[in-house]
Amino acid sequence: MEKTAIYHLNDSSYCFSTSLNRLVIRLRTKRDDPDISKIEVMVMRKFAKKQIPHIFEMHKRAHDDLFDYYEAVLTIRDSRLMYGFYLYDKAGKRHCYGEMGFCESFDDFACGNGYFQMPYVNKADLVKENEKFSGRIFYQIFPDRFAIGGEPTLKPTMGWGDKPDRVSFAGGNLRGIIEHLDYLKNLGIGGIYLTPVWKSDSNHRYDTLDYGYVDPRLGSDEDLVELVKKCHEMDILVMLDLVYNHTSFRHPYFQDVLKRGKESPYYDWYIIHHDPVRFLESDFEHFGKARYMPKLNMSNPACADHFVEVAFDIVKRYGIDAYRVDVADEISHRFYTRLNNRLKDYDPDFLIIGENWHEASSFLNSGLENDGTMNYALRSLLIKAFAEEKMTAKELEEKITSLWFRYKEGTSLNMLNLLSSHDTPRFLTLCHEDKARFLSAYAFLLLFPGIPYVYYGDERGMVGGDDPDCRRCLELDKNDPEIYEPIEKLIHLRKKIGKTFKGYSLAHKGDVLALTLTYEGGTLSLLINLGEDIRLQSNVAHEASYRYDGKTLKHMGFAAFSKKIVIE
Amino acid sequence: MEKTAIYHLNDSSYCFSTSLNRLVIRLRTKRDDPDISKIEVMVMRKFAKKQIPHIFEMHKRAHDDLFDYYEAVLTIRDSRLMYGFYLYDKAGKRHCYGEMGFCESFDDFACGNGYFQMPYVNKADLVKENEKFSGRIFYQIFPDRFAIGGEPTLKPTMGWGDKPDRVSFAGGNLRGIIEHLDYLKNLGIGGIYLTPVWKSDSNHRYDTLDYGYVDPRLGSDEDLVELVKKCHEMDILVMLDLVYNHTSFRHPYFQDVLKRGKESPYYDWYIIHHDPVRFLESDFEHFGKARYMPKLNMSNPACADHFVEVAFDIVKRYGIDAYRVDVADEISHRFYTRLNNRLKDYDPDFLIIGENWHEASSFLNSGLENDGTMNYALRSLLIKAFAEEKMTAKELEEKITSLWFRYKEGTSLNMLNLLSSHDTPRFLTLCHEDKARFLSAYAFLLLFPGIPYVYYGDERGMVGGDDPDCRRCLELDKNDPEIYEPIEKLIHLRKKIGKTFKGYSLAHKGDVLALTLTYEGGTLSLLINLGEDIRLQSNVAHEASYRYDGKTLKHMGFAAFSKKIVIE
Repeated sequence: MEKTAIYHLNDSSYCFSTSLNRLVIRLRTKRDDPDISKIEVMVMRKFAKKQIPHIFEMHKRAHDDLFDYYEAVLTIRDSRLMYGFYLYDKAGKRHCYGEMGFCESFDDFACGNGYFQMPYVNKADLVKENEKFSGRIFYQIFPDRFAIGGEPTLKPTMGWGDKPDRVSFAGGNLRGIIEHLDYLKNLGIGGIYLTPVWKSDSNHRYDTLDYGYVDPRLGSDEDLVELVKKCHEMDILVMLDLVYNHTSFRHPYFQDVLKRGKESPYYDWYIIHHDPVRFLESDFEHFGKARYMPKLNMSNPACADHFVEVAFDIVKRYGIDAYRVDVADEISHRFYTRLNNRLKDYDPDFLIIGENWHEASSFLNSGLENDGTMNYALRSLLIKAFAEEKMTAKELEEKITSLWFRYKEGTSLNMLNLLSSHDTPRFLTLCHEDKARFLSAYAFLLLFPGIPYVYYGDERGMVGGDDPDCRRCLELDKNDPEIYEPIEKLIHLRKKIGKTFKGYSLAHKGDVLALTLTYEGGTLSLLINLGEDIRLQSNVAHEASYRYDGKTLKHMGFAAFSKKIVIE
Repeated sequence: MEKTAIYHLNDSSYCFSTSLNRLVIRLRTKRDDPDISKIEVMVMRKFAKKQIPHIFEMHKRAHDDLFDYYEAVLTIRDSRLMYGFYLYDKAGKRHCYGEMGFCESFDDFACGNGYFQMPYVNKADLVKENEKFSGRIFYQIFPDRFAIGGEPTLKPTMGWGDKPDRVSFAGGNLRGIIEHLDYLKNLGIGGIYLTPVWKSDSNHRYDTLDYGYVDPRLGSDEDLVELVKKCHEMDILVMLDLVYNHTSFRHPYFQDVLKRGKESPYYDWYIIHHDPVRFLESDFEHFGKARYMPKLNMSNPACADHFVEVAFDIVKRYGIDAYRVDVADEISHRFYTRLNNRLKDYDPDFLIIGENWHEASSFLNSGLENDGTMNYALRSLLIKAFAEEKMTAKELEEKITSLWFRYKEGTSLNMLNLLSSHDTPRFLTLCHEDKARFLSAYAFLLLFPGIPYVYYGDERGMVGGDDPDCRRCLELDKNDPEIYEPIEKLIHLRKKIGKTFKGYSLAHKGDVLALTLTYEGGTLSLLINLGEDIRLQSNVAHEASYRYDGKTLKHMGFAAFSKKIVIE
């Protein structure tokens, strides 16, 4: 038994409650360890009249390239538990594994024994799927480029449909979005994510000048009120961008610092290295290499509290449902606890998604900071498998499994899954405009657990390279039905499963990856052939069900997604 | 190379900053993996003009029974880094290890590459040693049993020196503590921790009736003000008990719930399962099996905010320096973020120690909840090694190393290390009154990194079994100089090292455990022979320095601590 591969940690992604009565316990072992014959978890109520060991066998839930992941899902009444693992080797010998490592017996450490502890589950600490968002498909809108409604307040500086540059305004506005909510509703969209809408000098508005004041180019405060109201009437949720890592250098606070240095009350709201600030020498912390975006000092409680109140006022004023946090990984953990407490006290269903392209455990695992991230980590795997064709079905299955077990189940279910965004080339472009590859990946994205979103225009076959090319104007008179129709079908299929979703599994056979969703009443399997051989092995088709509501995916038109086609 | 044993996680106890310029990176491998010849960490500044790889060799810092722990300590200017590990096998082949696991190259995952990320170090998130507390030795006082000063307000119900029962009051009070601060100062004490002082029916006062109101048996509000003031004048810090897991059932809030059920504004401040509450049927959550201590509902923001303000008012009013949180592991994480933000905004040096006997990563690692715990985990090892003689020097070294690497360095340095408390038998009693064993363990405790404390009377050789026997009255006319003098010397030795402490290491040779402290200007080694053979192997004495300020420990009287004696 490879003891060094075995891992568990209490109160982590290896032991968590999703409700006061449901406890998930995970254990990791070396993959296919030939010396493990059985694994059990032994659980005792700490304050029962009599401490009785309850023993549950753990089942292998999935594996990646190195590890097997075992899971046991327990129904509990009393959350004050201690527990430990029994690993049986091939010879039948029992090995005890507890918080002090391997031991002969958990009572080895009498004064504070060797069991793992589950001290108590507080309701406020549950990390669970956000039910308000589950089963919805989101849609990301870059407001300047989605649609023009009514008259633009200010004259656009580029024509609608022109190739975008970094500085031009195409004139898209909130009225344009309001006028196209029917389009989104028909597509099956259940939520929109708008990149920034507050006053700014740029077309992307990530350099904010006035938080909470709608950029006049986009419309008025009333337009935003109306947009959110109409969305809610149509059962579409609204997520806004929260850009608090930095402001515009032209923000009045930073300008005051430039003028008055340490005399400014805002001097400590930024991270200034020299007084007076020599702007061109970048004497202050800023985003990336962009000195026009000076970084806010969220380590300063006064600054943090101010921005928490700004964020809170916006939630109250407009009734929005979620924030997507820009540059989320560079903002203070302490700031997030303030923000999260303030927003969740007001609306426990409020969702906070971080822009975090990487391993984000420290922002996610407590459930007290971000609820999920924009799932760029998943996207990078889907790029490798579908766009670059550099990953086999086996590798994709394993890597996605690694991602899944990084986080608590609730966190994984709150991830905002995507293929394209305003910060990346469009996925169709990455696929060299190969529609089968593109649709295969979108099929995977739209069915995989989490909150998938469609980047505006992806559903119509829009292309575009790196920023600013990925921010072209949506032209509603152009469409590719070979893309639009299957995407629309997939969205409606996912919506049908909706809240009846119960679980998923991944498997592969040769070049074929099978994503199987379990829902109340059935299962659905998506089979994608990632190989060159277009004939799907018949045993794969045999093993995996690919029926939903009695219809085969093929009859519903989904067979066409398989990268190299075919389900037989 | 055993890849399944290799572990790293960014922004965790495996990668953390202790200041804006000091970054610690750790990597775990299988112990003595014969196929690892060298480990490097490659670090790049993400936003440098040109991304240049900086390569640092990692050094084996310690090991436990299963793992080797490598560490690299880097001086950084810019904290926006990406990094990855190069592991060289015996054949010289380089294996890359990043956030996506093992890979041929970190650029395998082009769109969000495979490096580990260090996005940014925010000052507010630093988890570091609390300098105000470092180098101090604390002293725990159970106020009813420490000393009577002046006249007791209420007549004691037991004689001073009688064997304590669960309900009697011996009459110790705050005035008694004030009158003995000189005694503590002479002993070398730098901080006191008082178990609860607020109004309560019991002698332990963990069933609070009125938070912030000094129990009349202990004295007046003015007495507490004076006590804190005098302590601070004598450079003694003050830590009070924070008992917010539960109140007394006689607390007015719970009484109101009993009377009015759901009509009570406090109904949701507890966790009530039945309305009206049938008290004798324990229709509500409470501490352990003790229905007289109903559990507060800290998942309710109104309740949580109230108690945060109570805690804050006490800090402001009395100027105390730290809280020890009772039943810390059963209180909501979300509550701790509120409490921590409120207290640290006011006093960034404020210290919060949780009563948590077990693995406490989820309460400690973020640095946003508890700063350290009462280190019962360390104590249970010292019991096994010194009191029960069931652990070898090798095992003790390994298990302590496991504990150390659970947490970030700053957290480990903020642990409140102890051997006895009001909740445990006294350590001398656990040692069957064997003074050599007792003193060996105390020598280890008082020199080991962290904040050690002496439980009142341990320094005078007091004995006592389980609660309430461990809460006997301190009799200042009784003393055991064979215990008092070495403890006093050790305390002063630790104080001398004080803030000059730089690091520690553990090693063993046969039955001898060596704890070596590095401080500015030298090293100090404590050698403890845990075996039966009283002759210390001469090569051990040779390898480890055991001199401090030019004097050998033997000359300072410390050789006598070695359980089976001898340093030659």
